[in-house]
Amino acid sequence: MTSAKGKLYGIGIGPGDPDLMTLKAYNALKNAHTIGYPVKVKGERSTALSIISERVDVSGKDILELEFRMDPSDEVRQGFRKEAVRQIAEHLDAGEDVAMITLGDVSVYSTYMRIDRMVRDLGYETEIVPGIPSFCGGAAKAGVPLMIGEEGLAVVSYAKDNPDVERAFVGFENVVVMKAFNSMHEIAGLMDKYGFPRENAAVISNVGMDDEYVGPMDPERKYGYFTTVIAKKGGL
Amino acid sequence: MTSAKGKLYGIGIGPGDPDLMTLKAYNALKNAHTIGYPVKVKGERSTALSIISERVDVSGKDILELEFRMDPSDEVRQGFRKEAVRQIAEHLDAGEDVAMITLGDVSVYSTYMRIDRMVRDLGYETEIVPGIPSFCGGAAKAGVPLMIGEEGLAVVSYAKDNPDVERAFVGFENVVVMKAFNSMHEIAGLMDKYGFPRENAAVISNVGMDDEYVGPMDPERKYGYFTTVIAKKGGL
Repeated sequence: MTSAKGKLYGIGIGPGDPDLMTLKAYNALKNAHTIGYPVKVKGERSTALSIISERVDVSGKDILELEFRMDPSDEVRQGFRKEAVRQIAEHLDAGEDVAMITLGDVSVYSTYMRIDRMVRDLGYETEIVPGIPSFCGGAAKAGVPLMIGEEGLAVVSYAKDNPDVERAFVGFENVVVMKAFNSMHEIAGLMDKYGFPRENAAVISNVGMDDEYVGPMDPERKYGYFTTVIAKKGGL
Repeated sequence: MTSAKGKLYGIGIGPGDPDLMTLKAYNALKNAHTIGYPVKVKGERSTALSIISERVDVSGKDILELEFRMDPSDEVRQGFRKEAVRQIAEHLDAGEDVAMITLGDVSVYSTYMRIDRMVRDLGYETEIVPGIPSFCGGAAKAGVPLMIGEEGLAVVSYAKDNPDVERAFVGFENVVVMKAFNSMHEIAGLMDKYGFPRENAAVISNVGMDDEYVGPMDPERKYGYFTTVIAKKGGL
């Protein structure tokens, strides 16, 4: 019986350039009956869906909008996950493969991993297809190494009271700060405090969009939502 | 005149599965006149070259073996880099595009970034094509997230006296240790010391090779050269 059920693919589509999808992602998307994508609010436009549409014809496919509202309550968020799993399972039960797409890599701050476990726990088959994380795409765009030799790298997600952000600057010579769009002043302050010259930061913002920015850090500038800072104590 | 010269591509080919090459890498490799690959000793077999050969016909291409010996002297290592740049420039001067391949991602511990700068400084055009780093490929294989929510991630390369390795376990709940093949006992010791239960480590080793291993950490086992540990304080 199990063999008649569909399979769930969790697909990292990379940092924005459709040609940075892997061959595996491309083939899985081409073959999938149903494409699922996460939104924070129903009816939201999906950046991930428009990126894959540049290479994969999605016109004949079922499109599944999966709502994951950013609610402060764990219980409410878990409720949205359960509803997403229910929608996905409906397609899998009908024998259809579902590909759920995620910007960047699936293992880097993605809701997909929670969904994958819930779907596996129900007895369905799943497969994770990794993607290029935004910080690797950003390093390539900016022409800087993330780390060389024996250097370490810390990757953190900016949030006002997240202690990992400061710990990264304390302990590591290479720091990636994701979700940095709204907090350039705070990041610049940490760089000053821990001996990272300001010119040793590259900002990579909204790659592939109209307001794409790749260049030095200017705390006075406004940046788009998808903004990553690469700070290198020893120089870019 | 410049337009008649070839262009250098630095290409991350991903963690081992040829289908984890990006569309961009695949196309650049298909079109490149010359494929360069790094070796530690002349005549060494190239894992990267055999991976791309599964998807790209390299039989009609010039193959350029670039030797980067692991010498303790900076001067000797720089000498090998200069020689590699000279060989690459010869092809670029002949109007041929050169694609230099790297396992994983180009910005993660790769010699390519040094070569890229030297070649750019000589006035040639270069382009960096990012790849899936081994730790993202490994997380997908092991079915674990690298980080979720507001968690941070530290990525380090194991070496006996590298202080970043211990700092990673001190400050972060998610730790990736690359080049871990020979130091499982030391890594297990750090996990014990900093409250990471032993069962919270996944080992990903020699993916795609005969001795591939993806599973729990066993310090008594022997692992191949391409071994990464993902340790998660809060559980896999």
